[in-house]
Amino acid sequence: MVLEKIQKTGDVRSLDKKELQDLADEIREFLIDNISRNGGHLGSNLGVVELTIALHLVFDPATDRIIWDVGHQCYTHKILTGRKDGFENLRKFGGMSGFPKRGESECDSFDTGHSSTSISAGLGYVAARDLSGEDYSVISVIGDGALTGGMAYEALNNAARLHTNFIIVLNDNEMSIAENVGGLSSYLSSVRTAEPYLEIKSGVEDALNKIPVYGTRMIASIRNTKNGIKQIFVPGMLFENLGIKYLGPVDGHNISKMTKIFREARKVPGPVVVHVNTIKGKGYGPALRNPSRFHGAEPFDVETGVPKNRHQASYANVFSTVMCKLGKTEPKLCAVTAAMPDGTGLKRFRNMYPDRFFDVGIAEEHAVTFAAGLALGGMIPVVAVYSSFLQRAYDQMIHDVCMQKLHVVFALDRAGLVGSDGETHHGTYDLSYLSSIPGMAVLAPKNKWELADMLRWAVEQHDGPAAIRYPRGEACDLFRSLRAPIVYGKSEILYDEKEIALIFVGSMLETAVKVREYLRDIGYSCSLINARFVHPLDEEMLLRTVKDHRLIVTIEENVRSGGFGDHVLEFVNDIGCGTRVINAALPDEFIGHGSVEILRKECLLDPESICRRIVAEYAGMEQDE
Amino acid sequence: MVLEKIQKTGDVRSLDKKELQDLADEIREFLIDNISRNGGHLGSNLGVVELTIALHLVFDPATDRIIWDVGHQCYTHKILTGRKDGFENLRKFGGMSGFPKRGESECDSFDTGHSSTSISAGLGYVAARDLSGEDYSVISVIGDGALTGGMAYEALNNAARLHTNFIIVLNDNEMSIAENVGGLSSYLSSVRTAEPYLEIKSGVEDALNKIPVYGTRMIASIRNTKNGIKQIFVPGMLFENLGIKYLGPVDGHNISKMTKIFREARKVPGPVVVHVNTIKGKGYGPALRNPSRFHGAEPFDVETGVPKNRHQASYANVFSTVMCKLGKTEPKLCAVTAAMPDGTGLKRFRNMYPDRFFDVGIAEEHAVTFAAGLALGGMIPVVAVYSSFLQRAYDQMIHDVCMQKLHVVFALDRAGLVGSDGETHHGTYDLSYLSSIPGMAVLAPKNKWELADMLRWAVEQHDGPAAIRYPRGEACDLFRSLRAPIVYGKSEILYDEKEIALIFVGSMLETAVKVREYLRDIGYSCSLINARFVHPLDEEMLLRTVKDHRLIVTIEENVRSGGFGDHVLEFVNDIGCGTRVINAALPDEFIGHGSVEILRKECLLDPESICRRIVAEYAGMEQDE
Repeated sequence: MVLEKIQKTGDVRSLDKKELQDLADEIREFLIDNISRNGGHLGSNLGVVELTIALHLVFDPATDRIIWDVGHQCYTHKILTGRKDGFENLRKFGGMSGFPKRGESECDSFDTGHSSTSISAGLGYVAARDLSGEDYSVISVIGDGALTGGMAYEALNNAARLHTNFIIVLNDNEMSIAENVGGLSSYLSSVRTAEPYLEIKSGVEDALNKIPVYGTRMIASIRNTKNGIKQIFVPGMLFENLGIKYLGPVDGHNISKMTKIFREARKVPGPVVVHVNTIKGKGYGPALRNPSRFHGAEPFDVETGVPKNRHQASYANVFSTVMCKLGKTEPKLCAVTAAMPDGTGLKRFRNMYPDRFFDVGIAEEHAVTFAAGLALGGMIPVVAVYSSFLQRAYDQMIHDVCMQKLHVVFALDRAGLVGSDGETHHGTYDLSYLSSIPGMAVLAPKNKWELADMLRWAVEQHDGPAAIRYPRGEACDLFRSLRAPIVYGKSEILYDEKEIALIFVGSMLETAVKVREYLRDIGYSCSLINARFVHPLDEEMLLRTVKDHRLIVTIEENVRSGGFGDHVLEFVNDIGCGTRVINAALPDEFIGHGSVEILRKECLLDPESICRRIVAEYAGMEQDE
Repeated sequence: MVLEKIQKTGDVRSLDKKELQDLADEIREFLIDNISRNGGHLGSNLGVVELTIALHLVFDPATDRIIWDVGHQCYTHKILTGRKDGFENLRKFGGMSGFPKRGESECDSFDTGHSSTSISAGLGYVAARDLSGEDYSVISVIGDGALTGGMAYEALNNAARLHTNFIIVLNDNEMSIAENVGGLSSYLSSVRTAEPYLEIKSGVEDALNKIPVYGTRMIASIRNTKNGIKQIFVPGMLFENLGIKYLGPVDGHNISKMTKIFREARKVPGPVVVHVNTIKGKGYGPALRNPSRFHGAEPFDVETGVPKNRHQASYANVFSTVMCKLGKTEPKLCAVTAAMPDGTGLKRFRNMYPDRFFDVGIAEEHAVTFAAGLALGGMIPVVAVYSSFLQRAYDQMIHDVCMQKLHVVFALDRAGLVGSDGETHHGTYDLSYLSSIPGMAVLAPKNKWELADMLRWAVEQHDGPAAIRYPRGEACDLFRSLRAPIVYGKSEILYDEKEIALIFVGSMLETAVKVREYLRDIGYSCSLINARFVHPLDEEMLLRTVKDHRLIVTIEENVRSGGFGDHVLEFVNDIGCGTRVINAALPDEFIGHGSVEILRKECLLDPESICRRIVAEYAGMEQDE
């Protein structure tokens, strides 16, 4: 086993050519074996095995700064920097992260998770390096999908001004998570197959030289015309137009070709793009055939590629079904996604109504303002996106949708704690940033039936901006018979009692039910209320609640600041009643990876912790009397 | 006067060629006269007079959809759509907005204010138009500066897929607010002067045809090579590479040339960029010589261009001075701005320390992540940006700066109500979105001295993310002798009394002082506390305050949800004391334009309104006893 020889950073450099290829094969086997047991990102990691080896041969990851855009393709990098054993506890609570983390290794230069940040971060390092008079290399590794994100372009536009070395490795697998879209994508595919510029260039000049008299004149004339003959043939003209040198394309599974081109890139006295062609999922048939499913995979059977666990319907499934039905009855309905047709569940809608489906690429900002335009043109757009990624379009929601009071529906999947992807992916700010925007209706369903009802309400009955947030994974099926119609700004009472009122937001239903059961077991009377709307607040319900209850407990999977609990507290304070309020919410700190159950316990958002707080509070209240 | 003939939309079409040129001259005179008296955006509007006339000649603004990116260049558009009289009350409370507003006219297609949204919005209209089977034209007018914003590129990348007409007018004046930066900018300037493609193309083919034998072969060979000869000469290759047809450049002050090219553009069965060269400030010497000052101008003397009112130092001036001083003592200090070297006050820093100054273009997202990279490379970056524009980089502050606990300082100018620019420009969410991010220190200075102290503290003493927010305009100079050192998370007590405690955030000092004077006049004892930090909260101070006071009044120029008042309320609730709390903050609605004084009154955030609430609350409290 060559892999045995890789114990620490730099060990890869002592291998010979044959061993390097064996290493690549063994790493693939290692990754497939580990991820099939524990889950994780597979396809992207299988694609960059040789690319990572080549980078580690040419650059020193401890002193040079390699920045992995998005970051989920860093597994080989982790193996080569002495973290092979970490895969036993990959993405588990307290275990190794599935993303680069500076806290884990000095070889991780920049924590990533969201897309398209690496060129900006790399440029920052480059500027700092030059100001400090140091001379390390900075390498941003970015996929063609991530290059559809606007901030990558903002950074490229700035990189063009550089007069010192900065290497951008374009990892081109023609994929983001789904297939890529847009002009850049078709441009890159036209380039992928082109012969490298320099070879062609000399060929053409040779040919022209053979033309008597006119040939030489042509060379001179073409050379004088702006940038000369280069413009005819160079495949990276898009980058060169911006002022960034282009090398490639090079086969991303040929280690020696890549090391050669990286050494060349290091000598360029300015910004340089190295175009590397890789195959997502390389070496594993099921991942090649179904790239979307093996992007972030659950544990699966290696032979067949079939997931080991069968799941109940997820919220994304429910969303998918309702969208397809609504598409039939509402011809104005459109669906917009930012490179997530599978993850969000819009694939079926795309197949049924291709004209009304828009995948804009990894471009949340554009997605939201595009939806605003659709709404003004008479359509009813639903923008489906993960909660933490919608943070990218906070300004557009304020400025382009809500300020104009447009009928745009936001479907926020993966709201709340997401589990093993960890801190970059938790959707734990949305209730705050959404409900501070005037006019934005903010909803959270208690179970899958309510998601269906809320989506129908937002599309068919509401006429303004609305955001529905729901969690990752299996959809809750409790209280399926309770389906009172959705009414703007109105909550739903599940149990109407006295003393203590538990008001929960969406995903916290099950927790709230357990809290209530425990409290009733020890003798308390306890109402259970489903907030449904986080914004606007159901003041009528609260007015009634404060009359009959001595304590209100709000429960939400969101930071406390600006969340549902704050809104309830504001109201209770303003009417000046004596009802006590407990806000159970996430703490004012970043939360790592691990199972949602463990993370909730850590955050004191589990039934036991909430009960303890309530009992203590109640004891104090009785003492005061 | 030709201008007299323009009473309603479409009147411009009845003018002859000579009258059109006179109209342009008269509009310039009208704009200079009006803006010199009332203030407003001058340079950008002088630049697009003929461009707007040409658009109105070719397109019908009532049925076609013209979208003005950023929107401050819409004055001629307003004149041509029957709103000339509105200039009397331009940007005043209840008067006409300085930006496009759908509420003002059916000819305003999309409300703008922030940069780079127009292509996304236009694409939305186009998709809706095609789905509805309608056939109006959609025209997005975007400046070369706005094209440095990432979402414009996201939209271009999507536009490339279109197979129906969509017109993007690139208004190229080589300026955003300051001069443009980056690769795109130098690319565009190489193109500006190039002869139009078609003319050259035929010239070259003619020349080649004259070459015996080889000439014809060359034409065929070049034509076969990817996109053929076009690639040598076409100036818009950057766009054509993306799949967007390019027309131009055309003289943006020649009405007939522009109408011709717009008519041509309308026939293109796909996306088309029309490159128009304009001169910002055209027709007014002072604006030509000082484009930054006449971007958004205060009233000025037409003869000399000198502002009519002399102002006290602004917060931006103070920021400027301190940055320059810190630059000397702290060699790691860097300054980052997103196209606002003048507005933010960084021009002097740029002149003194050009190596450590970075203007990244209108690219807030990149600015923040670039700063994260700078910090990791050992620098201390200060990102200076207007509060409402930083909304664009909410995700980057969470994901790239705070999650990595990096020492990046944010200087947020124009926080709170900004006055005449109105709803798109008010910085009234920052306390909420910033203080919900774990680890972000959020500060607001009470006066100009405190801004200096806070900036020094954030750069020299703090080691983590910090945001300092301060208002537009004249810096407050009250309480200049009170300069207790800044301590992390600590407030400052200005008057220590009993009964009522007023805790204000930064810009509300003067208001709070007036409230206190009034309350003392009518017999209340009243403490005055400067919050200094909105996040983290000074819990020690609050613990002391609740002991001695029956009522706490928080005063902040920010929405209530997630703001300072919410944090105080949380704390007071959690410790379970009987102290009452009033949160004076901005309402849950969008606020229009007008003087800050009037707007505060409208929002009940003026001293009188706050006093009324306090007196009523206190009366109620006494009744309860």
